[in-house]
Amino acid sequence: MNIKELITKKRDRKALSSQEIGQLVKLVCDPEVPDYQISALLMAIFLNGMDDMEIASLTKNMAYSGEVLDFSNEPGPILDKHSTGGVGDKTSLILVPLLNELGLKIAKLSGKGLGHTGGTLDKLSVFDGFRIDLSKNEIQRQVGKIGMAITGQTEFLVPADKRIYTLRDLTCTIESIPLIASSIMSKKIACGAGHILLDVKVGSGAMFSDLEHASMLARQMVSIGTALNVPTRAVLTDMSVPLGSCIGNALEVKEAIEILKGEGDLRLRTLCFELAARAFQMVNENIEYQEIDYQINRAINSGNALNKLKVLVEAQGGNSEYIYHPERLPLALHQSSVAAPNSGYISRLDARKIGMVSMLSGAGRVKKEDILDLGAGVILEANFGQYVRTGDPLASIFASSQSKLAEAADVLQSAFEISQQAPGDLPLILKEY
Amino acid sequence: MNIKELITKKRDRKALSSQEIGQLVKLVCDPEVPDYQISALLMAIFLNGMDDMEIASLTKNMAYSGEVLDFSNEPGPILDKHSTGGVGDKTSLILVPLLNELGLKIAKLSGKGLGHTGGTLDKLSVFDGFRIDLSKNEIQRQVGKIGMAITGQTEFLVPADKRIYTLRDLTCTIESIPLIASSIMSKKIACGAGHILLDVKVGSGAMFSDLEHASMLARQMVSIGTALNVPTRAVLTDMSVPLGSCIGNALEVKEAIEILKGEGDLRLRTLCFELAARAFQMVNENIEYQEIDYQINRAINSGNALNKLKVLVEAQGGNSEYIYHPERLPLALHQSSVAAPNSGYISRLDARKIGMVSMLSGAGRVKKEDILDLGAGVILEANFGQYVRTGDPLASIFASSQSKLAEAADVLQSAFEISQQAPGDLPLILKEY
Repeated sequence: MNIKELITKKRDRKALSSQEIGQLVKLVCDPEVPDYQISALLMAIFLNGMDDMEIASLTKNMAYSGEVLDFSNEPGPILDKHSTGGVGDKTSLILVPLLNELGLKIAKLSGKGLGHTGGTLDKLSVFDGFRIDLSKNEIQRQVGKIGMAITGQTEFLVPADKRIYTLRDLTCTIESIPLIASSIMSKKIACGAGHILLDVKVGSGAMFSDLEHASMLARQMVSIGTALNVPTRAVLTDMSVPLGSCIGNALEVKEAIEILKGEGDLRLRTLCFELAARAFQMVNENIEYQEIDYQINRAINSGNALNKLKVLVEAQGGNSEYIYHPERLPLALHQSSVAAPNSGYISRLDARKIGMVSMLSGAGRVKKEDILDLGAGVILEANFGQYVRTGDPLASIFASSQSKLAEAADVLQSAFEISQQAPGDLPLILKEY
Repeated sequence: MNIKELITKKRDRKALSSQEIGQLVKLVCDPEVPDYQISALLMAIFLNGMDDMEIASLTKNMAYSGEVLDFSNEPGPILDKHSTGGVGDKTSLILVPLLNELGLKIAKLSGKGLGHTGGTLDKLSVFDGFRIDLSKNEIQRQVGKIGMAITGQTEFLVPADKRIYTLRDLTCTIESIPLIASSIMSKKIACGAGHILLDVKVGSGAMFSDLEHASMLARQMVSIGTALNVPTRAVLTDMSVPLGSCIGNALEVKEAIEILKGEGDLRLRTLCFELAARAFQMVNENIEYQEIDYQINRAINSGNALNKLKVLVEAQGGNSEYIYHPERLPLALHQSSVAAPNSGYISRLDARKIGMVSMLSGAGRVKKEDILDLGAGVILEANFGQYVRTGDPLASIFASSQSKLAEAADVLQSAFEISQQAPGDLPLILKEY
């Protein structure tokens, strides 16, 4: 079947067979097949969807479109943890060393941030020298040695996803559940994950602001895992307010270190521990919750989890001095605060807007080519639901120029809503699969 | 609005404003906008459609995306006649000189054939030297002088359609009513048509085999004409069986000459006269049918209509000797006949299959680059509904090699069905708008 026959079939709402999906992925990897035909196919998939069988087959074929990590000689379970991304989401920085201390092995591909969301690789770049371009052999060697690695997608891993993802971004076909699910899961499979834990964000700061679409995505990814014999769990968690009180690269590293010390924002800490417990349970099926809780607390209180972050950073060539000296982390020179215009309860703290503020301060990218200011960002001084008095600080912005500061401050005020009635509770975990 | 915003809007089933359509056509003509974004937009239009306002606006903006023929100094009405294409459809070769003799002026853009359908330009190329690359000024000058011209699309006429059409072919977005209707009508408007008569084919040999889709296309084009103040009529005519008994370039020229002499296939002649009558009526509103019939017959019987074909061919540099010596037309050397395998009525004579036979004989193109054999093709010896005895000839194939002859003959047999019951009448004109 050639590309035109595949386009026609999806255009006409017909399901592709496994063999046809195999051919599709081959054509995507063929540089002689022009972008305009692939983008027509992507729009047809976006609008007409794919069924579970097609999506599982697409994921598998994408996963095997390039190099695949092989941990068959590695004793013990290999897990991958993935967040669909949000504002202030530094959970990977916390969970990878914490789970490693709990005996799990993790080989994780992460990405850079764009728009209002940050990326784990940007946060790791705070540790000067940290390499995000490990080769297949380097990843395998490092996981064999220290049991963990976080790196960027190489040229050779999942090349089909690389081409599809670039075109999706340029042709407005990002928000397609079959395409998102297969993109995420193919990378996990190619990285040799034996267990997958997914944190699917829901709310204004996430890809999907409504529970319905986020649930469809979560269900779809669990269904792929099941079809491909990789045990997969998905947790839907709130992203209507930012996660934690720090947004920006060095600021988030600082907050991650606090959590690894058992300190810091309660909501962020709770999420990390809940995710860690589920990951631990996935690979230790009959363990009791009390035992997990004990082990997590021991990993934190002993300082071992924090030390594992140091081990990870050093293994990948990063400067680890910040881990025990977070006060030395870079901080942008210019600072301004926004104060509460009136007294009342903080009834809205819009995650997407705070993400925009952070981006405008220099901590995020408007365009892919933008260079980040690692010391820029936002610290929230007041949290959702909290009572504030007129003039109380709501948040501080850090930027390396007055103009960026002003641009960011303009948006910050509109992220907050203050009302006379206390808002209801904001659940953290909304649903599980 | 940039291209991504336009893609998103059509992807999300929203209607584009006139201004946004104007921007869309500008972006289509901008070589810096990549093909893959235009093709994603085309697939979104294919799947989500466009409303009447959008389609009229798209047509107008496409028509004015390049040079536009100007006949404002030309006395008398300028008409354009268009067929959506079929098998054995040589009506343009007949109608342009006939209508010209009736006092109408015609500036017509035609195309080349591909696949099972032939193209008027290929048929005209039988007259060696016939130029199909007239410039804007040449077309205008020739219409001023002799009142008619048939030529190919230049680089400068409707460039937006050129780019869209090429991409539609490659991305399987041909059969979209908004895109077909705007493509056809934009070329008519750019050619300065004051009146448009459309022959929309229905049946296996046409773009749409069902009356429903063909009617939608016809209605859509009439609606565009109305919106843009160009009186437009559409006639839906049968294309389930080939038109006339000759298929192939020189063979069709020969048949066209017969019709212009008042001879030849009755069904083809009837169609040409019915279309001519409607065209004549469009520009002479209060004329009676008897008067039209009289004038058409006079144009034919006087030999003036045939002479006008000579005038047209000579004006565009073609060798016109065939017109009065059709026996000199090229004919491929190898010939074979297919005979009726049993006695009975011809109850099916599949237009698409006959088109394929003609293509395989060398008269049509499998790929755009193929070079035609002008003398190749098919002559039907028996017609739909006719009673044949075992061994009676059904059709003859002409080709320049035995292998092409054999390939074509293989398909020919399956185009015919013979049954013991006489089939019902086959209406010629199915519907009008």
